[in-house]
Amino acid sequence: MMKKIPHRIYLTEEQMPKQWYNLRADMKELPAPMMNPATLRPATEEDLYPVFCKELAHQEMDDKTRYVPIPDEILEFYKMYRPSPLIRAYNLEKALGTPAKIYYKFEGNNTSGSHKLNSAVAQAYYAKKQGLKSLTTETGAGQWGTALAEACSFFGIPLTVFMVKASYEQKPFRKAIIQTFDANVIASPSNTTDAGRKILQENPETSGSLGCAISEAVEKAVTTPDCRYVLGSVLNQVLLHQSIIGLESKIAMESIGEYPDVIIGCAGGGSNLGGLIAPFMQDKLTGKANPRMVAVEPASCPSLTRGKYAYDFCDTGKITPMAKMYTLGCEFIPAPNHAGGLRYHGMSPVLSKLYHDGYMEAVAVQQTKVFNAATLFAKQETILPAPESAHAIYAAIEEALKCKETGEEKTILFGLTGTGYFDMTAYTSYLEGKMNDFIPTDEDLQKGFDKLPKIPGIQG
Amino acid sequence: MMKKIPHRIYLTEEQMPKQWYNLRADMKELPAPMMNPATLRPATEEDLYPVFCKELAHQEMDDKTRYVPIPDEILEFYKMYRPSPLIRAYNLEKALGTPAKIYYKFEGNNTSGSHKLNSAVAQAYYAKKQGLKSLTTETGAGQWGTALAEACSFFGIPLTVFMVKASYEQKPFRKAIIQTFDANVIASPSNTTDAGRKILQENPETSGSLGCAISEAVEKAVTTPDCRYVLGSVLNQVLLHQSIIGLESKIAMESIGEYPDVIIGCAGGGSNLGGLIAPFMQDKLTGKANPRMVAVEPASCPSLTRGKYAYDFCDTGKITPMAKMYTLGCEFIPAPNHAGGLRYHGMSPVLSKLYHDGYMEAVAVQQTKVFNAATLFAKQETILPAPESAHAIYAAIEEALKCKETGEEKTILFGLTGTGYFDMTAYTSYLEGKMNDFIPTDEDLQKGFDKLPKIPGIQG
Repeated sequence: MMKKIPHRIYLTEEQMPKQWYNLRADMKELPAPMMNPATLRPATEEDLYPVFCKELAHQEMDDKTRYVPIPDEILEFYKMYRPSPLIRAYNLEKALGTPAKIYYKFEGNNTSGSHKLNSAVAQAYYAKKQGLKSLTTETGAGQWGTALAEACSFFGIPLTVFMVKASYEQKPFRKAIIQTFDANVIASPSNTTDAGRKILQENPETSGSLGCAISEAVEKAVTTPDCRYVLGSVLNQVLLHQSIIGLESKIAMESIGEYPDVIIGCAGGGSNLGGLIAPFMQDKLTGKANPRMVAVEPASCPSLTRGKYAYDFCDTGKITPMAKMYTLGCEFIPAPNHAGGLRYHGMSPVLSKLYHDGYMEAVAVQQTKVFNAATLFAKQETILPAPESAHAIYAAIEEALKCKETGEEKTILFGLTGTGYFDMTAYTSYLEGKMNDFIPTDEDLQKGFDKLPKIPGIQG
Repeated sequence: MMKKIPHRIYLTEEQMPKQWYNLRADMKELPAPMMNPATLRPATEEDLYPVFCKELAHQEMDDKTRYVPIPDEILEFYKMYRPSPLIRAYNLEKALGTPAKIYYKFEGNNTSGSHKLNSAVAQAYYAKKQGLKSLTTETGAGQWGTALAEACSFFGIPLTVFMVKASYEQKPFRKAIIQTFDANVIASPSNTTDAGRKILQENPETSGSLGCAISEAVEKAVTTPDCRYVLGSVLNQVLLHQSIIGLESKIAMESIGEYPDVIIGCAGGGSNLGGLIAPFMQDKLTGKANPRMVAVEPASCPSLTRGKYAYDFCDTGKITPMAKMYTLGCEFIPAPNHAGGLRYHGMSPVLSKLYHDGYMEAVAVQQTKVFNAATLFAKQETILPAPESAHAIYAAIEEALKCKETGEEKTILFGLTGTGYFDMTAYTSYLEGKMNDFIPTDEDLQKGFDKLPKIPGIQG
């Protein structure tokens, strides 16, 4: 009799990856370079020094180094909450009656409640090492703010978090947990920055957006001595750190003789998806294997499926470098009835390029379907997922049901990025039948596209 | 060089215990029998059938069977979220500068957020197996209600949860998560039961209590066909199921060549503490080892340290059997400013007996000190603890600091029962300096003692 695969596969400390994997080193064509909005020339590493600490600016630009050693201090921190389990969803499979084998990598078992801690600890560590005196960031749903507050508290670096006003008001417990880790939380837009004041002047009633909070955090970083800005998604450096998710997943799957036919992740800015797929995409880029990879995004913020592949600012205030990515326009704000995260107007330039070149698929899903999948999953697998993560659950269930029709025994791997503990308002709204779907019209989206920046000779 | 002990020790599925351990089988003197309030005679297994399903009534009374096989269906459920990690608190040790080795068993990595799921799944399974059609229970802080809702949803048994009104109103997210798992949640006291109506009549403004919610849940169970009551603490059967915590801890410690000098757990009704210490207490009772064991309770609800060892009802409405235990009187309600759980008026009869016979110590701690320990721990170990669990953290830190003075390299094991995600109101109150301590006066407590039941020939 074949030995049954355990429900949960944990790597030992010895098995844990000691290096991050830099996907760009294996890409046939690299993403287009970031553009300095002042010079309209490709940004250099030095251009980034006022915003990011030096090591992170280097990681942002380095598309050559394939494997980056994880510093010991970060490895030690990882060992406090990692390895995260790879879990075989036996009960979900049974409930669906599918011949497919469903695995998920669960990143929610730490106090930040999500995978965001993987990059937060790296960014806080490098800032500390450079002798910086403080950091700034933004947070939307609050997972990133919590993760970075934890990391900064551990390394003893003061942190200011610009929290999207809608979240600040609707998620007081998220704010409280960030404050428990000593961070200063400011509702964005605020009157503490020029960018915030400008946005408030134009729209005093705004509930804020990620792009706007980024503008404020970057402004505060560049105008405060020995202060830098850190970001929880989109960036190359973040995908590098998050590769720990995929690397652990791959080792764990190998240890049980498995390899995924399809890999599914939710996609907002791309931090989780980029990390999860990294080593599998390496196999695809180098011809070793050919798994399908699927990005799942909300229908209310469909950057990959309905956005333009173009240069755009990373923030609403237009003070960051421009990146070529799938974007809905940097002033796009998703409908207020959209629950949870995945609200960013753009998508990681690396993932955008891979999607553009056909290495990756994307689907957009309406949120009532997502919550339907979330509650089904919770009842079968005992984990209440974050709404973000539940996008991947929905797509994994769809794949598994297709296998039921065709009889294929596919191996599905999806990323379960976090828990839904702080999203109970959304769950209640779903339970009470008060949750709506919202799909922007083509006209809605065109307004965003019309405002994309013009770059002579590159983008008209 | 000696191999460094990993931060997290996970058992494999093969190493996981297949049997629960029944501590009573090794006790030199057994706890006094439960008393039927109608007959004032020791309760029989049959007396319990209207309240508990048969297998659980049997487990409640069985003080002979040392090891009880865990049914396969429960083992399979355990494998979805267990083994829970045994964690070496390297960073806490470093922050304290102690030579002590601190380990904790973390039970918060499941959606119920605590160890309560260990008994919930067992109780739901046996009820299903007996063909029961519904269950009732009460919940205070909400951990038990969440856990049982998860288990009942998995086994397809409708559940009604009487939630202490104060929690119902102050913890809407707790209510929401219980509802997500399909349970019916009623604020207690309610007008759906005689017990609730009576309490409301006497005190219309009451914010409820655990004892009162138990009365309502028991009444509904015994007056509804094919319905039974389940309880998350205090009972012998609960301690039996929770022995999984201690059994896993012991195997994990043995695997790294460790044995605890002192074992520390928070104590409300005793479910976590009783489970954690079980196999170590076996060693103590059988003379194999002599570890210290410490119960940590809130100063505002000090059943062990200031209660009377006497027969008392398990509920405020006085409809349950009477148990001999340390109690503050079944009408005792802790001060409303007391955060979190550990609010029960009594203590597990097994633990009460062991404490009475000198096998166990107890301390009472004020809550501001508890939250101080909780935030220190969170910043060092990245886990935000439940206020309940933080009682054990406080005492573990005190032990470690004593070791710092004496230079002793003691091995400390404590139970980290759950996460504080649903306790952010209390954390905020602590952060803002608005948290008060409350210690009942001797006169306060005497009022409870004066109402202890009279049992001719046994208790005057």
